[in-house]
Amino acid sequence: MNNMQGYRGTRDFLPKEWKIQKWLFANLREISNQYGFEEYEAPIIEKLELFTKKSGDEIKKQLFNFKDKSGRELCLRAELTPQLARYIVQYGKGLKKPLKWYSIPRLFRYERPQKGRYREFFQYNADIIDSNLKGTAEIINLCIDILNNLGLKSKDFVMKINDREVVDKLIKKYKVKTEEFYSLLDKKYKMSEKEFFKELDKISKSKELKKILKLKDKECLAEIKKNGINTERMEELFKLCDEEFIEFDLSIVRGLAYYTGIVFEAYDKKGYFRSLLGGGEYDNLISDFGGPKIPCVGVGISDGTLPLLLKKKKLLPTEFKNYLFIATIGEVYEKAGEIAKELRAKRLNVYLNTSDLNISKQLELADSLNYQKVLIIGERDLKKGEVTLKDLETGKEKKVKPQELTEIL
Amino acid sequence: MNNMQGYRGTRDFLPKEWKIQKWLFANLREISNQYGFEEYEAPIIEKLELFTKKSGDEIKKQLFNFKDKSGRELCLRAELTPQLARYIVQYGKGLKKPLKWYSIPRLFRYERPQKGRYREFFQYNADIIDSNLKGTAEIINLCIDILNNLGLKSKDFVMKINDREVVDKLIKKYKVKTEEFYSLLDKKYKMSEKEFFKELDKISKSKELKKILKLKDKECLAEIKKNGINTERMEELFKLCDEEFIEFDLSIVRGLAYYTGIVFEAYDKKGYFRSLLGGGEYDNLISDFGGPKIPCVGVGISDGTLPLLLKKKKLLPTEFKNYLFIATIGEVYEKAGEIAKELRAKRLNVYLNTSDLNISKQLELADSLNYQKVLIIGERDLKKGEVTLKDLETGKEKKVKPQELTEIL
Repeated sequence: MNNMQGYRGTRDFLPKEWKIQKWLFANLREISNQYGFEEYEAPIIEKLELFTKKSGDEIKKQLFNFKDKSGRELCLRAELTPQLARYIVQYGKGLKKPLKWYSIPRLFRYERPQKGRYREFFQYNADIIDSNLKGTAEIINLCIDILNNLGLKSKDFVMKINDREVVDKLIKKYKVKTEEFYSLLDKKYKMSEKEFFKELDKISKSKELKKILKLKDKECLAEIKKNGINTERMEELFKLCDEEFIEFDLSIVRGLAYYTGIVFEAYDKKGYFRSLLGGGEYDNLISDFGGPKIPCVGVGISDGTLPLLLKKKKLLPTEFKNYLFIATIGEVYEKAGEIAKELRAKRLNVYLNTSDLNISKQLELADSLNYQKVLIIGERDLKKGEVTLKDLETGKEKKVKPQELTEIL
Repeated sequence: MNNMQGYRGTRDFLPKEWKIQKWLFANLREISNQYGFEEYEAPIIEKLELFTKKSGDEIKKQLFNFKDKSGRELCLRAELTPQLARYIVQYGKGLKKPLKWYSIPRLFRYERPQKGRYREFFQYNADIIDSNLKGTAEIINLCIDILNNLGLKSKDFVMKINDREVVDKLIKKYKVKTEEFYSLLDKKYKMSEKEFFKELDKISKSKELKKILKLKDKECLAEIKKNGINTERMEELFKLCDEEFIEFDLSIVRGLAYYTGIVFEAYDKKGYFRSLLGGGEYDNLISDFGGPKIPCVGVGISDGTLPLLLKKKKLLPTEFKNYLFIATIGEVYEKAGEIAKELRAKRLNVYLNTSDLNISKQLELADSLNYQKVLIIGERDLKKGEVTLKDLETGKEKKVKPQELTEIL
């Protein structure tokens, strides 16, 4: 074959890369389990209509869709939430609510690959089905703990939070057009302040609105309240989350569809990358799929941006240690196999040399695989009732009796 | 939507089912890591030619293939080995051999769904790249340990082993047609002994061959040797594996393509199901994909048959315990949140009630989620400086001071 490379936008995970990926997943699982969230999974192939019926044209263009050999219209899932909605409609009656669920699905989107954006990627999802403001706080705290546990502190990231009900009330009060206002908020950090207010001026001449948008965080929220708009939920949410990490930001809107209340996104403070994660409250999704009306909250963390930040901050693990490598010299394989069996019965990680490599090549292999210790079993040594235990970190070695090994190791 | 069910041949993994799946994967990983095998992963979407170029028409009919929006011919991977071959060709020069690698890929085949056979499934793969007979023994021992660790003993399963070189020598010596002989061997257990020998009679009149095929296991192997055919590798392999679990069986052939030497399959002894796992030595695959000629050995264990046997033998776990559920009565959520935070900092699994359910509904929820303990934080109790710790297994409860909790739990 001429071109053996994988398909554009997919990634090859050799052991070295896959270990980092698994480390990330283990972190996500650890904190999710700590919070009492339960993991689930869903198929990769779904009927096309599950994804096209409720989503806009944008997702349709991004779908990998195809027909099976019987002509059924299928697609690779581009997000998990429609599948979650399907589960609630299909199995919801037998499940005690609230559901606190998470998953780390592999997702597929046909878009132009770029740094931190792939056609095939993993995206952590956590949702509470039948939620309320406390549930929203729980999800936000879960996200903060996940980022903390990965080594990111409040100097590294900020969780920006907004309430779409507040935005909608501003729209009503100041008589701006919904789409125009949302679109402008969404672009706030993509333009200079001067440009932003020039654009705002085209939409609204209100001095009050301008003042609100000049202010940040708590001051912005206070100004909104002063103008007679109910900001109680945001205030209550601030009490339930760790203030060190959160910030009120009117420009977090997360598109027009889907979300109905509080929305949030985490960003690295230096502004190197796109958002690290994003989520919010959605009240209509389950009913859109034919189920009951249930308030929900959810978050997605893709493996695109976050690892880039971890790498930049030198927070990705660089070494994964293995334990014992059994090297062999001469005709000692059966004895080596016995020793490996005994040590593995003790749940130890034991590599048994099965190759015909000479001893120095075996030691190179053990080193390249990050083994801490090498047990060298040689034909001559064995006749004297000895084997050699070498510590690859210190370089020290000592002779030991084979029967002592299960105690020493 | 009228029909909310998933696509035919896919499975929905709600937390209850996914826990069992994860338990199976954890077992596979545990033993593979013990043996010093390293995990890797590969993309789900591949270029179609990677799968069609070297495989026969059979796999082509079973592929989910499609074009992307730029007209590129793609497919969902139906097996992992072509991707492994691609890795070796693409990255092999930088990797010290032998490679001992495993993976638990999600695979896709368009075939008729039936019990234990899905269109979307997981299949554990372990391979040694640059292997020899000791490597084959290591893979077989790895498989035996995996089955043992899942609770299956020698009364439950047998590892049937054959050597295709021996079969080929029989073909040459007794002048039978390769395809006819392979096909007959493959069907041996699907027909009665009488039928089998009637069919054999059509292919060969040799009394020696008939005698060989009447015998089993070691006796069969001895008879082959007696007729002047070299059986050294099989004999050597028997020394390197645990005899309790293995059996020589001429009828294990694993199709015409792909394998070149030793082949093996594990079966449940009662014959309830198809094979539990299968693998063997393959020497030409890497070179078929344009790489060097490297002897390899590999095994595949799909999540179709094995869980069916584990279920029948009552070896699947039935309960996964959670630790602490914090229930709340009245306006105590902020205090409950503080306590949850402290206990989670100790790495404990702590569910925090965020719902407005009454206390008896909360206890029902805790019970249904298999929590061992419930901490009940009530408004009145809290004023007295007390909370209630209830053991859901014994039903016993006691009052404790909130500040004592990090020590008690």
